[in-house]
Amino acid sequence: MAMVKTPPYFEGWKAYETNPFHPVDRPDGVIQMGLAENQLCLDIVKKWLVKHPEESLCTAQGVSKFKETALFQDYHGMPEFRGAVAKFMGKVRGDRVKFDPERIVMSGGATGAHEMVAFCLADPGEAFLVPTPYYPGFDRDLRWRTGVELVPVNCESCNNFNITGDALEAAYVKAQEANLRVKGLLLTNPSNPLGTILDRDTLKNVVKFINQKNIHLIGDEIYAATVFMEPEFVSISEIIEEDDVECNPDLIHIVYSLSKDMGFPGFRVGIVYSYNDAVVSCARKMSSFGLVSSQTQYLIASMLSDDDFVDNFISESRAVV
Amino acid sequence: MAMVKTPPYFEGWKAYETNPFHPVDRPDGVIQMGLAENQLCLDIVKKWLVKHPEESLCTAQGVSKFKETALFQDYHGMPEFRGAVAKFMGKVRGDRVKFDPERIVMSGGATGAHEMVAFCLADPGEAFLVPTPYYPGFDRDLRWRTGVELVPVNCESCNNFNITGDALEAAYVKAQEANLRVKGLLLTNPSNPLGTILDRDTLKNVVKFINQKNIHLIGDEIYAATVFMEPEFVSISEIIEEDDVECNPDLIHIVYSLSKDMGFPGFRVGIVYSYNDAVVSCARKMSSFGLVSSQTQYLIASMLSDDDFVDNFISESRAVV
Repeated sequence: MAMVKTPPYFEGWKAYETNPFHPVDRPDGVIQMGLAENQLCLDIVKKWLVKHPEESLCTAQGVSKFKETALFQDYHGMPEFRGAVAKFMGKVRGDRVKFDPERIVMSGGATGAHEMVAFCLADPGEAFLVPTPYYPGFDRDLRWRTGVELVPVNCESCNNFNITGDALEAAYVKAQEANLRVKGLLLTNPSNPLGTILDRDTLKNVVKFINQKNIHLIGDEIYAATVFMEPEFVSISEIIEEDDVECNPDLIHIVYSLSKDMGFPGFRVGIVYSYNDAVVSCARKMSSFGLVSSQTQYLIASMLSDDDFVDNFISESRAVV
Repeated sequence: MAMVKTPPYFEGWKAYETNPFHPVDRPDGVIQMGLAENQLCLDIVKKWLVKHPEESLCTAQGVSKFKETALFQDYHGMPEFRGAVAKFMGKVRGDRVKFDPERIVMSGGATGAHEMVAFCLADPGEAFLVPTPYYPGFDRDLRWRTGVELVPVNCESCNNFNITGDALEAAYVKAQEANLRVKGLLLTNPSNPLGTILDRDTLKNVVKFINQKNIHLIGDEIYAATVFMEPEFVSISEIIEEDDVECNPDLIHIVYSLSKDMGFPGFRVGIVYSYNDAVVSCARKMSSFGLVSSQTQYLIASMLSDDDFVDNFISESRAVV
């Protein structure tokens, strides 16, 4: 009776391999990007910090804000933080799309963000489709506590790991045959582990597929700024605004984080951005389990509100990757 | 199929009242302590900050540590952080008991800590006993995502809300009659909302009860430092070390946080301290969903490693409450 549960899905590839829905022939030569955060621009950040002692809560210039920050506990997050993150997310996507600060929900890193979305959208035993190869941590992050299943969409090296309509349909049918209700598709773009980005046509096909099936699309875009200038990264948020794409925005959710693009994995800034009001509302309440430290919210708000810094940071990031 | 779940347990007392196992006669006049964190000693903290610019990552003196801190992502937490928190937990309990840094597990505030313990110890549909009146947020924190049930132990105002052996036994029987497997007892000491502390004899009886039943004891001690000098606060960690108490330490877990005792609710420093190796191991892996920001870990480690500061802080806290 006093038994303690053991974690079933903790060891990266092991979890991936023990997923009963995973193909036996794991693609060879695929290496997890793992800790591939952007460490190259931290010098720019350090210069900014030293120039702005008033933005630190721990200096004579900034300590007057310490008390209110330490006491801050609105689970919506600081308005300045949400505003700055929304603006940053737009800039990372070349300002081709705008993000609404009211839809920014905090979570404990992308790890917490993915779990939160899974909790919002699916009940135990329901499933998400995930194109292969995928980040093996998903088997821990999405399955462990939620009871959700991941059904692989088999993409093949001979086809450049393209996500085809046939592969999506086959995975959907496979899930149904296993008596699993499919609640969504999880798309990592830019891809981890491949390091590739999806083209506009593929994204349009994916959006068409999830709309036809009336299932959710979770776009993991945590490497959005960590890509080459060419070919240009296209966000799912751009696709759904295009004239020739029919899409129910209630089905679209983006997972973002500052761990990779800014190189701050320790700060645990995870973001859920949903176009669905019910998900925003539910996730915001759920975020109480993994809010971003107000000390970190304050620093990020200050830093990302500085347009010159952000523009310089993004262009340097693109130049060095 | 694209339905989104709605949060069932979010509104404080409402959740408390809709708990099917809760007594109809909610004790009148009981007011939630709610945001009762220690704001009184923040002046001491501010003075310390200004005196130690080298401990801020955002000053010329401290910025050299920024990069390694931002990149830090070991889910065990910084050794300095765990060491400093363990020492602080001992000092708060008058150094009558020692805490092992290896058993300190991070979580997103006490909210995340409670949920994590529930996930570790119980499956959906299993139950914890909770003496009344209890913090109404527990119905959200412990039940929402875990599927765990809370069965009240009815304590009465005419008896000073004493936790009697009869009340414990009655709640246990009631749970069994409802076909619920009882996995633990959740004890908040000092009490929220009552603001009272439990005496040594009551704590011994509780430990005897949970050992007889072979169920877990979760001691919520988040107000440990926010109490008067007399009567002295007694931690469950002291009771289990006493000669005349028979106790299986694998059943004992403490939830702590710096939100109330230090007045830093925004920083989301939650702690699970377990005497059970399997819980430490499982919770540590689970803590990836709500780690403490490394920026905050670094600050807390610096501040709580300063013995003079901590001694002054604790004695001032006790003097002003």
